[in-house]
Amino acid sequence: MSQQTHSVTGPGACSGRQYRFASRMAKTPKSFIREILKVTEDPQIISFAGGLPNPGLIDVDGIARATASVLAQDGHSALQYATTEGYLPLRQFIADRYKKRLGLSISPDEILITNGSQQCLDLIGKVLINPGDHVAIERPGYLGAIQAFSLYEPQFHPIILHEDGPDMAQFAQELDKNPIRLFYGVPNSQNPSGITYSENRRREIGALLAGRDTLFIEDDAYGELSFDGTALPSMRQFLPEQAIITGSFSKILAPGMRLGWVVAPPPIMDQLIIAKQASDLHSNYLSQRIAYEYLLHEDIDERIAGIREAYKQQSGLMVSLIQEMMPESVTCTHPKGGMFVWMTLPEKVSSMEVFENAIRDHVAVLPGTPFYVDGGGNNTLRINFSNATPDKIRTGIERLACVIHALEKR
Amino acid sequence: MSQQTHSVTGPGACSGRQYRFASRMAKTPKSFIREILKVTEDPQIISFAGGLPNPGLIDVDGIARATASVLAQDGHSALQYATTEGYLPLRQFIADRYKKRLGLSISPDEILITNGSQQCLDLIGKVLINPGDHVAIERPGYLGAIQAFSLYEPQFHPIILHEDGPDMAQFAQELDKNPIRLFYGVPNSQNPSGITYSENRRREIGALLAGRDTLFIEDDAYGELSFDGTALPSMRQFLPEQAIITGSFSKILAPGMRLGWVVAPPPIMDQLIIAKQASDLHSNYLSQRIAYEYLLHEDIDERIAGIREAYKQQSGLMVSLIQEMMPESVTCTHPKGGMFVWMTLPEKVSSMEVFENAIRDHVAVLPGTPFYVDGGGNNTLRINFSNATPDKIRTGIERLACVIHALEKR
Repeated sequence: MSQQTHSVTGPGACSGRQYRFASRMAKTPKSFIREILKVTEDPQIISFAGGLPNPGLIDVDGIARATASVLAQDGHSALQYATTEGYLPLRQFIADRYKKRLGLSISPDEILITNGSQQCLDLIGKVLINPGDHVAIERPGYLGAIQAFSLYEPQFHPIILHEDGPDMAQFAQELDKNPIRLFYGVPNSQNPSGITYSENRRREIGALLAGRDTLFIEDDAYGELSFDGTALPSMRQFLPEQAIITGSFSKILAPGMRLGWVVAPPPIMDQLIIAKQASDLHSNYLSQRIAYEYLLHEDIDERIAGIREAYKQQSGLMVSLIQEMMPESVTCTHPKGGMFVWMTLPEKVSSMEVFENAIRDHVAVLPGTPFYVDGGGNNTLRINFSNATPDKIRTGIERLACVIHALEKR
Repeated sequence: MSQQTHSVTGPGACSGRQYRFASRMAKTPKSFIREILKVTEDPQIISFAGGLPNPGLIDVDGIARATASVLAQDGHSALQYATTEGYLPLRQFIADRYKKRLGLSISPDEILITNGSQQCLDLIGKVLINPGDHVAIERPGYLGAIQAFSLYEPQFHPIILHEDGPDMAQFAQELDKNPIRLFYGVPNSQNPSGITYSENRRREIGALLAGRDTLFIEDDAYGELSFDGTALPSMRQFLPEQAIITGSFSKILAPGMRLGWVVAPPPIMDQLIIAKQASDLHSNYLSQRIAYEYLLHEDIDERIAGIREAYKQQSGLMVSLIQEMMPESVTCTHPKGGMFVWMTLPEKVSSMEVFENAIRDHVAVLPGTPFYVDGGGNNTLRINFSNATPDKIRTGIERLACVIHALEKR
């Protein structure tokens, strides 16, 4: 294995000592988003760059009631060490909800509670990816997955994403050329594009992968946030032994509680539990107990309905303002759920330049390049609508349109 | 890379499908402790096998007050996404406490909040260990570190642990023979042995490692739990650019909140933050806010004094009963802090057999073998005293002594 040597540049490094890091670190992109979010911390800035849920829709009072009740009734246990798998009643609740929403039969033993769904990606990488393994991912693909998997040093194969899902001809071709171990996708309201796979496309992917040595990693962070409440079939329906689902309470309950989960067939789950135990023993048990108490006594469906309705309004307003104000050469996706709109600018307009000019007008957007594992996407932008009021959406898109008009005319 | 193939054996695996796992998983021991703890869940059993803090010493009321206050004053923020590094005031508190307790100057920027200190070990492995790298560890060594590091496929070099710390001659020899990247040790009240390095031994290790390409990973989960309040110097004092410290709130506040931290020089911290972000974005923010609120308004020093006093009593009782009741050929350590006593039996007595016979008498102990990366330790036992009442310690050690007497006479 080659060694990577970094020289000391940070503050506090007094002697110029050099440290050697594991070679996997050289392959992991430092999050561009993270750097951008630092710029956008300025409260004057209207930020469409992040991916935060609307804080006003977090049920602080309900969570406070659930917390008080857990600590009063069973505090010593809720604050003690717990099992690696996670709190069984919470896993049972998740299993029951899959049955109700999607008709899926999932045992609680096939569910592991994680620190947000980002940790699922790390655990999946640990358990399933050897250096050099072939991993297919949507193009554009979720940056968090690119980062998590990169640490396990796979070869990425980006599959072009159309309005109804991955390009099937290219997908089939990649499968024939390389032994693809995993395909990672976000079928519902994808991050970054906002695209939802059609039901037909899901069936086609199922037929393409069935019986192959390829697992489908179905990241379903946004499945509950379809604006009209539609629940399209999970890939587990078509690939019962080849689908791994990741889920999250971050978008429906509260991201600060870092609660996600992974669903996997038993032999894979055995390995995920070993990896989870080695990684951090178990997930925050207090939060697990609070979440379960909340789900038991508060109306989560009513909360989710409120979030859907708000995001539907925000998304609709954003898309209609983009159509109205942007140059004709600009296109955008029409999300059916989730938190993001994806804009494609004329090829000659650089999204980095849009970012730099817009930030001067106190609007932050996210250039699309980091979502492409093979480069490209220089004329794309991810725009977040969940964490902005209608007023800010109006002002922000107006300013952004001015910036893009000016760059397009140049 | 070789591939490991497992056949499907678990429930729910209907077709005998085979999955391929990353080769690193074949190198990771499934926790023997975890399997044993399942046996000991039976409430009839007196368990010295686990490593749980005494639940009665967790300040549930104080934590409930802190929680109510955080949610009432700043709930929307405490439940939202947060920075990867962790809540700055909490990191500042930790830095200030290092100054006060150990005279160490540490910037909050050198501190990253993790999901318990177990996660530090995973992040350190990610950032610093290439497959085949040489890692030295105490013999016996902490099983959680063996598991976490094993996923990054190092070669382990166990260094014999004496009553005052690692064997210096062997340590020097290993350093000469191999380019040791990391030494992992628990200088204060080690898990599993209960041994505390002498101040002199710390100095000697500092002199041995200074200027070399070796980092000292100082796991300090138990530093606050020295029975007489002694705070021996951190290895950072002797190796300012080569020491990484891991810390934990699990033993002084509450393990269920999964709050630990890692202290590292800035260039290493940069890489740890990238690895943390890829692994799970950030640690539970609600718990971070609760912990800080608690530390601000409650008397943590009084709490810690209470824990020290209780564990001192429990440890003292256990050691004196062992001396009184066990065969003369049995020896044990005399912990100055922490949660464990380490027993060495005559060589002909197998600790697995002790475990099996004792469990029939409803007493659970932990055979020492999994703490040896090179095999061995077949006649050793780890005995936990923190989570047992004096009555249970008396009854449990009495029964254990009968089992060991019988096996010794055979």
